[in-house]
Amino acid sequence: MAYGVVMQALIDELGRLPGIGPKSAQRIAFHLLKVAPEDAVRLAEAIVAVKERVTLCPRCFNVAEGELCNICSDSRRDGSVLCVVEDPRDIVALEKAQEFRGRYHVLHGALNPIEGVGPGQLRMGELFERLDDEGVKEVILGTNPNLEGEQTLMYLARQLKPLGLKVTRLASGLPVGGDLEYADELTLGRALEGRREVDA
Amino acid sequence: MAYGVVMQALIDELGRLPGIGPKSAQRIAFHLLKVAPEDAVRLAEAIVAVKERVTLCPRCFNVAEGELCNICSDSRRDGSVLCVVEDPRDIVALEKAQEFRGRYHVLHGALNPIEGVGPGQLRMGELFERLDDEGVKEVILGTNPNLEGEQTLMYLARQLKPLGLKVTRLASGLPVGGDLEYADELTLGRALEGRREVDA
Repeated sequence: MAYGVVMQALIDELGRLPGIGPKSAQRIAFHLLKVAPEDAVRLAEAIVAVKERVTLCPRCFNVAEGELCNICSDSRRDGSVLCVVEDPRDIVALEKAQEFRGRYHVLHGALNPIEGVGPGQLRMGELFERLDDEGVKEVILGTNPNLEGEQTLMYLARQLKPLGLKVTRLASGLPVGGDLEYADELTLGRALEGRREVDA
Repeated sequence: MAYGVVMQALIDELGRLPGIGPKSAQRIAFHLLKVAPEDAVRLAEAIVAVKERVTLCPRCFNVAEGELCNICSDSRRDGSVLCVVEDPRDIVALEKAQEFRGRYHVLHGALNPIEGVGPGQLRMGELFERLDDEGVKEVILGTNPNLEGEQTLMYLARQLKPLGLKVTRLASGLPVGGDLEYADELTLGRALEGRREVDA
């Protein structure tokens, strides 16, 4: 063994994290060896704290550090509009836009028949329960614009439409600040299809 | 704040690690949130263990988990040949070659006048003390083949030569398995300069 057992154990544990290869794990382990003990302990404690104190919100399945997540516990949010997303990180991204004042529902994945992810593996039952309980009027389907996200969106739309709800999806088109020349055909196709009259 | 304080604290701590940007920190934090509690605790404990149990070898300044590092405490190693390297990771790389049976000395850096790294900031004094104490006959200068490493090598060579020691350096040339077409001019120049007669 190239390193001692203690050092190797840390390199192995770091190497299990997503996106951390053997070289990065080694680099981070040596970095931790060099930093002040209190800095390393703070990282170790932060890891333990997340496992002990962060749970999933029982209502929307966002991450929560109290009874409910900070969106569900905010009474100023509009409960009549629900945005369905795949992952809690999507909520963070959407919140940054400061455009949406409704609530969220996290599916924790997308339909993927090839990998055996069906409606039962996602938080879909809980979504349908919320619709009546919370008096939801509009559901925004905010799944990812890829194959799995699209399948999930179509599946949910077919279930939600008959319930008399307004069902919407996020607009597809050119990213702001992007370059038309570098946009792919599908995105350009969607941008043309969804073109809007200019108010001038 | 997009996340709760506990989650944000972990993302911040992870983001301080080398090579981990904000997106990776977020991804790792969510990964840790999902894994079994014992897996997360094992990582936290490994970090603490490294700070508590891994030190620098007082002889060669390699990482050590006992009194001396595992190379200095191995009596079968040849104490008359010393290989000087910049970093403990270089020892791991050289040991993998299974070619060297001597001992090492880790400088913990290279001379870099622009960033204020002089001989006093490196473990150079300790190197000269070892030469007499351990009866060293050859010093292999194994610094990195870049500007700082080369400066350090020349500085040490000028100090070591007058002491009547054999002073050598690692060979420069084409990497094994590499493609001549893609080698840079400097490497090709060194490969030509260091050409050897073929035993056939």
